[in-house]
Amino acid sequence: MQGRFITFEGGEGAGKSTQIAQLTQSLQAHGVKVLCTREPGGCPISERIREILVTGQGDDLDGTSELLLILAARHEHIRQVIRPALASGHWVLCDRFEDSTLAYQGGGRGGDGPWLRQLGQWIRGDVFPDLTLLLDLDPTVGLARSKRRGGQEQRFEQEALSFHQQVRQAFLQMAQQEPQRMIPIDADQPVQMVAATIWREVEGRFFVSF
Amino acid sequence: MQGRFITFEGGEGAGKSTQIAQLTQSLQAHGVKVLCTREPGGCPISERIREILVTGQGDDLDGTSELLLILAARHEHIRQVIRPALASGHWVLCDRFEDSTLAYQGGGRGGDGPWLRQLGQWIRGDVFPDLTLLLDLDPTVGLARSKRRGGQEQRFEQEALSFHQQVRQAFLQMAQQEPQRMIPIDADQPVQMVAATIWREVEGRFFVSF
Repeated sequence: MQGRFITFEGGEGAGKSTQIAQLTQSLQAHGVKVLCTREPGGCPISERIREILVTGQGDDLDGTSELLLILAARHEHIRQVIRPALASGHWVLCDRFEDSTLAYQGGGRGGDGPWLRQLGQWIRGDVFPDLTLLLDLDPTVGLARSKRRGGQEQRFEQEALSFHQQVRQAFLQMAQQEPQRMIPIDADQPVQMVAATIWREVEGRFFVSF
Repeated sequence: MQGRFITFEGGEGAGKSTQIAQLTQSLQAHGVKVLCTREPGGCPISERIREILVTGQGDDLDGTSELLLILAARHEHIRQVIRPALASGHWVLCDRFEDSTLAYQGGGRGGDGPWLRQLGQWIRGDVFPDLTLLLDLDPTVGLARSKRRGGQEQRFEQEALSFHQQVRQAFLQMAQQEPQRMIPIDADQPVQMVAATIWREVEGRFFVSF
């Protein structure tokens, strides 16, 4: 049986990886085979591309080259990891996917609009999330969390607050446009409450008829 | 005064870098400011992308992701290096440019035809070679040269001979289609003879009216 494809979206520090770990446990408790992955990255060559994307200095990549690198990484991630996993019945939980590209490279950077969706569709092909969980959070809260966490991957965190606010608005607009697929979840709550909300969504959607 | 943009194309081992060095000397002897560069690469971020392209294993990139990476590298190369150099009056000699993309990712890989030219044009914008010197050589000769040279960048060299023959044919067809811009030169001759042929082309085109 073909697996399900669930993506997690949201700004920096929204708790995506924590919630992916939570959902993984819940799914495994229901006997589901789970593959957790992330974008950009998810396979060796795409992780190498990620490194270029997240460790660079402000101006050495503009929105156009950022977009091309992200699409190259996604193409190999889909080809080498996501598509085979779904075909073998795994549920794939992915930290960021195409909505992030639209929100960051489109909403935040504001560039390359006509190309963004066309290229995205070309690369994605028939791989489309069954469900997208949007962890929504005020960027001032998220960036503070993300800064406490630290790490090398600070390229996007360094952007102005207005950039992150545009990204948030872009995400929320997408959720309004596709309410069946993309569910906004208030991420400014304790981890267990967010996890419970997510589980209700997943259970109601995929397990009720089991 | 805006500089000139001269690109060198051809298969592996055709002697592009040797001829670029020769032409650089001749141009400098005529008081021309020369910037030598190469693709993929030419600036720090694009050299990082090049490393991914040339050091990977056979199947970890397909033609589509290869194309996207090359275009990302070219975009930054044009933005950070080529355009500013031309604007400040330098002549830019570039080892490979868009014709290589068409010959390798189009002719050799045979893929993504409709996207290839469209994306190439988008990325190139108004930066177009004033002259392209195609160093033409039988791939069996070129690959033997290239293997003697060795090095880490063997990803394309590992392709079958038929791949390299398709690349050669693609280059020659392009030269037929744009005979004003793209000049095929027999590269199976001593270095100094090839250099003399190239200098006649450059002199006749750019220096006669000086």
